[in-house]
Amino acid sequence: MAAWSERLAGVRGVLLDISGVLYDSGAGGGTPIAGSVEAVARLKRSQLKVQFCTNESQKSRGELVAVLRRLGFDISEGEVTAPAPATCQILKERGLRPYLLIHDGVRSEFDHVDMSNPNCVVIADAGEGFSYQNMNKAFQLLMDLENPVLISLGKGRYYKETSGLMLDVGPYMKALEYACGVEAEVVGKPSPEFFNSALQAMGVEAHQAIMIGDDIVGDVGGAQRCGLRALQVRTGKFRVSWLLCLCLA
Amino acid sequence: MAAWSERLAGVRGVLLDISGVLYDSGAGGGTPIAGSVEAVARLKRSQLKVQFCTNESQKSRGELVAVLRRLGFDISEGEVTAPAPATCQILKERGLRPYLLIHDGVRSEFDHVDMSNPNCVVIADAGEGFSYQNMNKAFQLLMDLENPVLISLGKGRYYKETSGLMLDVGPYMKALEYACGVEAEVVGKPSPEFFNSALQAMGVEAHQAIMIGDDIVGDVGGAQRCGLRALQVRTGKFRVSWLLCLCLA
Repeated sequence: MAAWSERLAGVRGVLLDISGVLYDSGAGGGTPIAGSVEAVARLKRSQLKVQFCTNESQKSRGELVAVLRRLGFDISEGEVTAPAPATCQILKERGLRPYLLIHDGVRSEFDHVDMSNPNCVVIADAGEGFSYQNMNKAFQLLMDLENPVLISLGKGRYYKETSGLMLDVGPYMKALEYACGVEAEVVGKPSPEFFNSALQAMGVEAHQAIMIGDDIVGDVGGAQRCGLRALQVRTGKFRVSWLLCLCLA
Repeated sequence: MAAWSERLAGVRGVLLDISGVLYDSGAGGGTPIAGSVEAVARLKRSQLKVQFCTNESQKSRGELVAVLRRLGFDISEGEVTAPAPATCQILKERGLRPYLLIHDGVRSEFDHVDMSNPNCVVIADAGEGFSYQNMNKAFQLLMDLENPVLISLGKGRYYKETSGLMLDVGPYMKALEYACGVEAEVVGKPSPEFFNSALQAMGVEAHQAIMIGDDIVGDVGGAQRCGLRALQVRTGKFRVSWLLCLCLA
């Protein structure tokens, strides 16, 4: 295996996942992962550019940054690339009026979006909001549309809270895809557009950047397909069985 | 197109789907579909054998038969092939102890099943029971098992109630499959074992039977793959767009 210096040659920017890498979310704001507050501080003191690239869709960027600052992280809103603002941009460009199946914590990101007479469905990690009633409403709306549009903020299978593994938006996206016979448009990792917007925010090319994440598909696989290097951490949702996949890849 | 008499030559038994063919379920017990009470009565008066072959998993057979009898149908419990009793048989044979993500209405079918220290998950059309909390419990249990077993009572996408289309168990099965990286075992239509048990109950061979249903995948496709003839009704969940599929098939 090549030495670290060799593997990191030419790296000018670092994309950092948040949940499972910097902290585990949960009751009381969550818990920082050991060493991560200091690691971010060291990156910030280095010559490297840093952007936080998250699929967090339960909190607005403002709320997320506030939580992380309380835990001791040096982070500001402008340094966060998140799927909710990217989705608002897409809705605006395409004249889409969403039915939102999302968590109340992220609703403020959609404050200026027209939601009258919906012509698409947007789902995010709604947590308890994924009730049968809400899922059925999204389903019925998609079935009534001539050209059903389903936008999903990420497609993660699960994430880790301090209390254990929790279902993410991906399984619910799959449920609606199967029910309606549609394919969702994913906004967030591993979508190339999303990695590119994070790179743009740093002003760094793909081959000059490394993604650090806990999700082998969303973070590591997605970044590598975009020409970035990637680093799999063993915190968060990491599972030992993935090592076999990495060895076989 | 061949005449009816030709298409039905040699038919000795009829498998009848229930929901969407005999009645639409819903508040107050649901509504019979026009002409269906009399159609069942005529079949019963004919030389043909009749078996009701349903994926109903919100009600026990006893409750389902009581509902249908109140609506005027000539039906008894022994004439119903349903996935819950078939699942109990499988659990017993394989020493499986389920966590049940099911509707309260069907729980009595599992009264004699050992549910201590679960080593598998059984999902059925749980309706409002498909809360985030219950789904997450099923997910966590599957993730903790070395050999995760997920049994799904049917895999229907949706069904029709008097109030409109409703999500069936299939989308939730897909959600858990994706979240856990497992493949569910489906008990119910379109599984060949299920059609065969319905044929056995009638004492009729596949080539001597016709399935009448409203689901192009579960009823029509499943039956045809088992060597039965099949008839697609235009009630229940039927959608005009399926005609294109039938023409292209």
